[in-house]
Amino acid sequence: MDLFLKAMKGENKKSRPPIWLMRQAGRYMPEYRTLREKYSFMGLCKHPELIAEVTELPIKRFGFDAAIVFSDILLITETLGCELHFEEGRGPVITPIESVDSLVHHPVVPSMQFVMDGIRLLKERLQVPLIGFAGAPFTVASYLIEGGVSRDLKKTKRWMIENPESFHQLLQVIKRATIEYIQGQIEAGVDCIQLFDSWAHVLSWNHFEEFSFRYLQDIVSEFKKIPIIVFCRGSSFFYEKLAQLEPQVAISLDWHCDMAHIRKKLPKTTLQGNLDPDILLAASREQVVQEVDLLLEKMKDDPAFICNLGHGILPTTPEENVYALIETVHKNKI
Amino acid sequence: MDLFLKAMKGENKKSRPPIWLMRQAGRYMPEYRTLREKYSFMGLCKHPELIAEVTELPIKRFGFDAAIVFSDILLITETLGCELHFEEGRGPVITPIESVDSLVHHPVVPSMQFVMDGIRLLKERLQVPLIGFAGAPFTVASYLIEGGVSRDLKKTKRWMIENPESFHQLLQVIKRATIEYIQGQIEAGVDCIQLFDSWAHVLSWNHFEEFSFRYLQDIVSEFKKIPIIVFCRGSSFFYEKLAQLEPQVAISLDWHCDMAHIRKKLPKTTLQGNLDPDILLAASREQVVQEVDLLLEKMKDDPAFICNLGHGILPTTPEENVYALIETVHKNKI
Repeated sequence: MDLFLKAMKGENKKSRPPIWLMRQAGRYMPEYRTLREKYSFMGLCKHPELIAEVTELPIKRFGFDAAIVFSDILLITETLGCELHFEEGRGPVITPIESVDSLVHHPVVPSMQFVMDGIRLLKERLQVPLIGFAGAPFTVASYLIEGGVSRDLKKTKRWMIENPESFHQLLQVIKRATIEYIQGQIEAGVDCIQLFDSWAHVLSWNHFEEFSFRYLQDIVSEFKKIPIIVFCRGSSFFYEKLAQLEPQVAISLDWHCDMAHIRKKLPKTTLQGNLDPDILLAASREQVVQEVDLLLEKMKDDPAFICNLGHGILPTTPEENVYALIETVHKNKI
Repeated sequence: MDLFLKAMKGENKKSRPPIWLMRQAGRYMPEYRTLREKYSFMGLCKHPELIAEVTELPIKRFGFDAAIVFSDILLITETLGCELHFEEGRGPVITPIESVDSLVHHPVVPSMQFVMDGIRLLKERLQVPLIGFAGAPFTVASYLIEGGVSRDLKKTKRWMIENPESFHQLLQVIKRATIEYIQGQIEAGVDCIQLFDSWAHVLSWNHFEEFSFRYLQDIVSEFKKIPIIVFCRGSSFFYEKLAQLEPQVAISLDWHCDMAHIRKKLPKTTLQGNLDPDILLAASREQVVQEVDLLLEKMKDDPAFICNLGHGILPTTPEENVYALIETVHKNKI
């Protein structure tokens, strides 16, 4: 079995740790930028052949140990009747919703057939495991309310606090669509699912439990046969809660915690992460090697560790640094 | 002795917890807004009589258990030769520095005599302890580099990673000025000092140690006779490190952690916090009472707990909610 799925099971005992990067098929790759001259981001996301082509780019070039379906956590919002587009330099733009009633519920799998077809193509071609993914309900809800990227989710938190009942209704609607979406991806053939709660870090402890964790739990408990990774920004403070998810999931940690410390607290959980994406962006080759060595030393002989960043790779990251990262991991024979 | 200083010593044994709020003299108070019609923010900050008047506003109205000198962590940058002003709705604006060489070092205490004079006036008038404060070097450096509020401190982190030597030089310059500034405030009469590392939460574990913690340690070790509180956004993940500061400090926690959990990890440290400022902003009176009761229940009979928010009170917070918070704390006879 390959390194990635072994580490997901906590059974990667006689080898280096697997490595892949969140957003590994993206702007930092010249091949990707070339494709983007011909196609819009949405154009790439909606075409099965292009999904497969882009997903494979970083595998072919860097030899990552897992591929992640090229897509975006917000595409699902179209199945809820939302208007979504992506603007250069601004990211996703959604017509903000004012109430849950404005959402519809199109069957997700037929509406997102392009993703399922992309996954099937990839499964014919790939030599490494394929990770499917979805946004967590809290994070997707925040985009629906804010209408795009926002610094501190003021509108979302105001809605959540002023009207928790309707906020829960919104989360339920998103959760149901998300479960359908994940079910479709699994049927199409993905080997693993990663949930992204990228905005959970704005929440208080109590609110995390009520508005994020509870929905992660509902989703995770639907899928007992496939390995699941949960990524939160905020996992550095929410990790002990995330470790209570049943069945147990792998936890993808942001870059603020000391992995060795988390390992002590969670001796068996598969841990993924957690290099600072800014290191890969701005450091010299020597610094990258040094930082990676430090992380690998902390996680030495760890059978349940997946090397990754603490968040997505940044668009202007030099490819030399990605090579430095991968070479350092590859030469690490444990 | 009063509740606040008792709790700072871990000796608040037979009473309710003390309460004060970060930024308690601010826009949410109509008296403050009236003053701001006559004076600019900087005008208020630089006039000893006005400093004293504004500092006292929330004590007179709400009966908080401690006052905090009305000022801003960035005023000190003027003693380093920086151009600083405040723009409505935008916050602080500083001409960004390109190198450490562009900084000068005016003697801090004479340059900030207005603060010292404000403190002396307050000490004649106040019935509650007075908290002086300063920004931590990392946070002040970030404003010098970004030129104002920034979402993720990209320029700061790039400088820090690309040129750690000159970044350390910058931190040293700010640290020296900060030590002078705190010394001046202590001589003028403050009863406690709070350090604000408001942007530490963007740092990785290693970088926090190298670029934030080390400087906090240098500052704290200069002042062995006065109680010190260290506030970080990011204290939810850095608290075990902060607890290593010597002499021991009180830790002001952001709103992401469970106070009961932190208390188990740090049985003796004075803990301050940690209500979500958005609760006070957007919740109903009943919700505020409920959230505060929850926190008070967690910290019941705790002799080393100071009730506060996890960050500054927000400008449009309804005063009714501040009253609800205070009344709930006041009726909590432990």
